[in-house]
Formats: sequence, C-alpha cells, structure tokens
Amino acid sequence: MREHGGNLDLAQQRFGGRAEDWIDLSTGINRLPYPVGEISAHYWQALPSRLEIDALHQAARHAYRTVAPIVAMGGAQAAIQLLPQLAPCGQVRILAPTYNEYAPVLSAAGWRVEEVRELDALAGADLAIVVNPNNPDGRYHAPKDLLSVLPRVGHLVIDESFVDAVPELSLAAEAGRPGLLILRSFGKFYGLAGLRLGFAIGNEADIAKLAAASGPWPVSGAAIAIGCRALRDDAWAKATSARLAQDCARLDGMAQSRGWRLVGGASLFRLYEMPDALAAQEKLARARIWSRVFAQNPTWLRLGLPGAEAEWSRLAEALAR
Amino acid sequence: MREHGGNLDLAQQRFGGRAEDWIDLSTGINRLPYPVGEISAHYWQALPSRLEIDALHQAARHAYRTVAPIVAMGGAQAAIQLLPQLAPCGQVRILAPTYNEYAPVLSAAGWRVEEVRELDALAGADLAIVVNPNNPDGRYHAPKDLLSVLPRVGHLVIDESFVDAVPELSLAAEAGRPGLLILRSFGKFYGLAGLRLGFAIGNEADIAKLAAASGPWPVSGAAIAIGCRALRDDAWAKATSARLAQDCARLDGMAQSRGWRLVGGASLFRLYEMPDALAAQEKLARARIWSRVFAQNPTWLRLGLPGAEAEWSRLAEALAR
Repeated sequence: MREHGGNLDLAQQRFGGRAEDWIDLSTGINRLPYPVGEISAHYWQALPSRLEIDALHQAARHAYRTVAPIVAMGGAQAAIQLLPQLAPCGQVRILAPTYNEYAPVLSAAGWRVEEVRELDALAGADLAIVVNPNNPDGRYHAPKDLLSVLPRVGHLVIDESFVDAVPELSLAAEAGRPGLLILRSFGKFYGLAGLRLGFAIGNEADIAKLAAASGPWPVSGAAIAIGCRALRDDAWAKATSARLAQDCARLDGMAQSRGWRLVGGASLFRLYEMPDALAAQEKLARARIWSRVFAQNPTWLRLGLPGAEAEWSRLAEALAR
Repeated sequence: MREHGGNLDLAQQRFGGRAEDWIDLSTGINRLPYPVGEISAHYWQALPSRLEIDALHQAARHAYRTVAPIVAMGGAQAAIQLLPQLAPCGQVRILAPTYNEYAPVLSAAGWRVEEVRELDALAGADLAIVVNPNNPDGRYHAPKDLLSVLPRVGHLVIDESFVDAVPELSLAAEAGRPGLLILRSFGKFYGLAGLRLGFAIGNEADIAKLAAASGPWPVSGAAIAIGCRALRDDAWAKATSARLAQDCARLDGMAQSRGWRLVGGASLFRLYEMPDALAAQEKLARARIWSRVFAQNPTWLRLGLPGAEAEWSRLAEALAR
C-alpha cells in the first residue's frame, strides 16, 4: 500500500499506545463528524434498492448544487480506481504535487503519466487531473481558469475532495459538459471516512460508464441512510464550514508561534514548512499525536484539525514542549 | 439495472404497501441475520487501517477454512465487476443458467461470452465460471469434478455465494492453485446484504491484481467490525446451517402441498416449478410477500426462506388461499 495519512497502525507500531490513546491528525478528516444516529435493521439486511440509491443521488445533487448525472461509490478513491476505464489508454497529465493515488493507478493501467506544475501545461492531454483545492498544499484555481483547460484536453477530472467548505470553488454545477468529471468525497467533510462514500458527477455517457463499472450495489445501506440525512442538512454544513475556518486560523496561529511557516492548506488540513519535519513528527508522536510527513519533501508536515477542546489542549502542550 | 431479487421497490410500485409491510423472499438473503451489535465511533470515522483489513482477511480465512491469499471487497458483486481485469480479453464460458451479472459484465468488457450446460463444455475457455451451488436451480458439482476442469481452462472462477451451509462443497481450501479463483459472499448467509462485503480467494498473483484494482480502502469500517466478529463465530454458523436445512425442508413441504415441484435450491432459497409462476407471484404479492420470477422461464418461482415464525404463518396462509 502506498503511503497515506490515517495510517495510525504504523504510528502505534513505532511509538506504542492503543488506538484510542492517539489523536490522528495525519489525515484531512473532520474530527467532529456528522452524527451517525440510528441505522434501522433494513439498511443492514436488504440490498440497497434502486429507489434508495436514487434518493442518495438526489441528496448529493442538493448538497453539491448540481443537477448533473451522478453516481455514488465507495469513496472518491473508488472513482479513482475506475478512471482508467473512462477512455482508451493515452496520456494523462496530473497537476503535481498532489494526492499520490492518481499516478500509480493510471500508470498500472497502461496510461503514460506526466506530472506538470502549471494549469496551462495540462493542455493536450487525453486526461488531465486537478485536485482543487489541492492536497497537500491547498493550492487552488478559480472555476473559470479550470474551465479554460477543458476544451484543450480529452477529459478533465477535478477532484473536489476538500471543496465542501468553499462551495464557490466547486465546478459541480458545470458537470454535464463533455469531458468534465467531478469527484466528491463524503467522508472527509462529514468526518465519516469509514463509511466509504463518494460521488462522481459528469455527463450522461461518462456517468453511465462509471455506474456500469461500479455495479448495481456500489455503496452500503448505512452509506445511503447516513448520506441521505447528512447531505440534506444545510445547517450542519454551514456551521461546520464556519467552525473549520476558525479552526484553521487557530491552528495556523499555534504553528506560527512554533516558528513553522504555512505553505497552504484546505479547510480540513494545513501544510507547514519547518527545518526537520521528521523530528517534529516524532516529537508530536511522543505526545500520541500523529501527523503526516512526505518522503519527497523533508521540510513538510501536514496537520489535520483537532476536534474536541481537549485535543486542542494536548496539541498546544505538545507544541510548547 | 438488470433484473435481480431484492427489488422490493418494484413490488411496492406495482402492489402498494410500505417496505416494512412486505416479507421479501425474492432474494437468497438469510432473514435471521447475524446480530449487528454496537459499532464503535472509530469504525465510522477512521479510514480502515491495513491492520484492520488484515484482521478481516484472517477472520475470513478462518470461516472459509483456507490459508490462501484473500482480498475483501464490497460484496461478491464487486469481485464480478473486476473479473474482466483478471486476464486479457478472450473467451469466457459460463455454466448456465445462472446469476445474470457474469455475462453482461464480461461482454461489456469485450469478452466473447458463451453459455454452456455441462461442466465438460467449459474446457478450452480462457475464463470459466461456475456458481456452486448454483443460483437459481441449486445444481452443484463435487470439488473433485470442478478441479478436473481447472487444467483445461485459463482461469476457473467458482462463485460460492451460497456454499456457507455446505462447506464440504467449497474449494476455498484449494485456492492458491494457478488459475483458480473463489468468490465468497458475506451478506447472504449472515443476512447483512446492505453491509456490502465479500471476498476473492486465489493465488498470490491474481489476488494482488484484484487488490490493486480494489484500492486501499475497499470495504467500510462497519464491514470490518461486523465481519471480524461474525466470521469467527463458529457456533452461530453451525446453528444457522442446521436451522436453514430444517427450514428448506419445511418450505419444500409447504410448496409440495400446494402442488409445486421442487426444481432445486441451495440452503437460502428454493426454486419451484408450477404452471404459471407470474400468477403465483401476484397471489403472494397480494399478501405482501415478494418472490422472484424469471423472464426466461415462466414456470419458475424462487423463494427465499421466511425468518421469524410470523413470516412462516403469513406465507402458509397466502399459499392456502
């Protein structure tokens, strides 16, 4: 398995402690999740019905402010796994550095992978990938700039896994255009990554292809039950977006007093630069706080946002040591 | 979507009633499920870790009595979706009639599909598919007869979705041989189809290929939490197998007194022949009992097993009308 955040099992192997002793800030998953509530027996026992999956699609269209064709899957990652099937093998250009699953998944399927640094350099690719806002550095592009790339590539995939709190950046409303495919993650903003739920939004032909590849029951009953509730809960989304904005500022402040420089970030994680990120990770790990470092950049440390106040206190103490 | 059992939404559209008014016998899903119990917050919130997925794999190896490489997926269906990637496109032969997803999934991926009626006719195929015991007619083959096919085909896929109650029929212990791939369903025997959990068991190269295609988080936290418990619970599996055997005999008796002929069946469903299956389906549907008919055979009606005693009574009354 490639290196990912959320690998608390590795932290435990290296530094000890039980899972519940740790605060896992190695991912960009909201630590104050949407309330799971009661899941009725029906959702565990029955195969998800067509009507139920349609209702989930409608709820997602509501949350993502789009009327375009959509298909639910087991996380945005499940959509990434299917990208090689979107078009015949060719050249894919990925705006890098970014989430490390795109290149190997497409490369393994025979695509020629090129990583580029600027939006304009995507032009001419059969498939172009932009994570917006980007993970791990938070770099983002305005919708109109992304749309200007669309006519110059075969397919343009925008991974909006971290866009929920900044909906004005989303291109979901433009999905339906030929060649444009939007990926959305449910688990990160709603704090329920274990549920495995995400969506692809696009034009009819592309979504039909991805839906066929996903099969008749691509998500669980629990994902339908919880997703339908959560994606209709505008008040929760609004309050959470506001809270995340405050929490980002709070974390940036703590990092700054420690002498770390903010590289960038999205509403669920922040990327800081420091002389020795591995040393910082170890120091936090001794306080049972797990963070993310990057093999390709030894000065980068990424932190998710603490949730409960007690987590903030523990982080403050650990940083002060 | 192709015609499947478990489509209670269609029953409601045609005959009315709320979902909870119906007894859904249109599938082969155990109606007395494994107890879901408490799912801790961790399993909802965190990405499934490598250690947790490994523990699920170990539990499945225990239940399925194998030491072979294994990979968890979102149901046996998820494995079917990936079969086209197992080998370069070629000819697939399917022992028919059987579960109606194999032919279209492989055909859509460019495979030449041939349906055959006898085990020997599979010989020479690049990929051969046998559902054992078979859905919908319960036909089954002894492990040694299936193994005799293996050297004569490229890959032999045995779908053991309905083998749990008759483990002596399973080839899971033989998985690991070149070319042999076993698919297992969790949701049917354990009565938790909404959980979306299944497994592929095979040799190292095939399982590595399917695991790569499934991505790093192919199943939910709830599937791990429940699956790890259920697959280690030998007492529940044994009691359930015994109960299902009794229930099959009971259902067969009721059908016989109605004048229906048993075509065959596995431990979770029975297939009966009658002059007019559509009429029988309608009659049961008026009592809010949903059954499965088959477009290609107007004399076949498939029934899952009722669960609680009240369900048996309602079925008996409906059949007596």
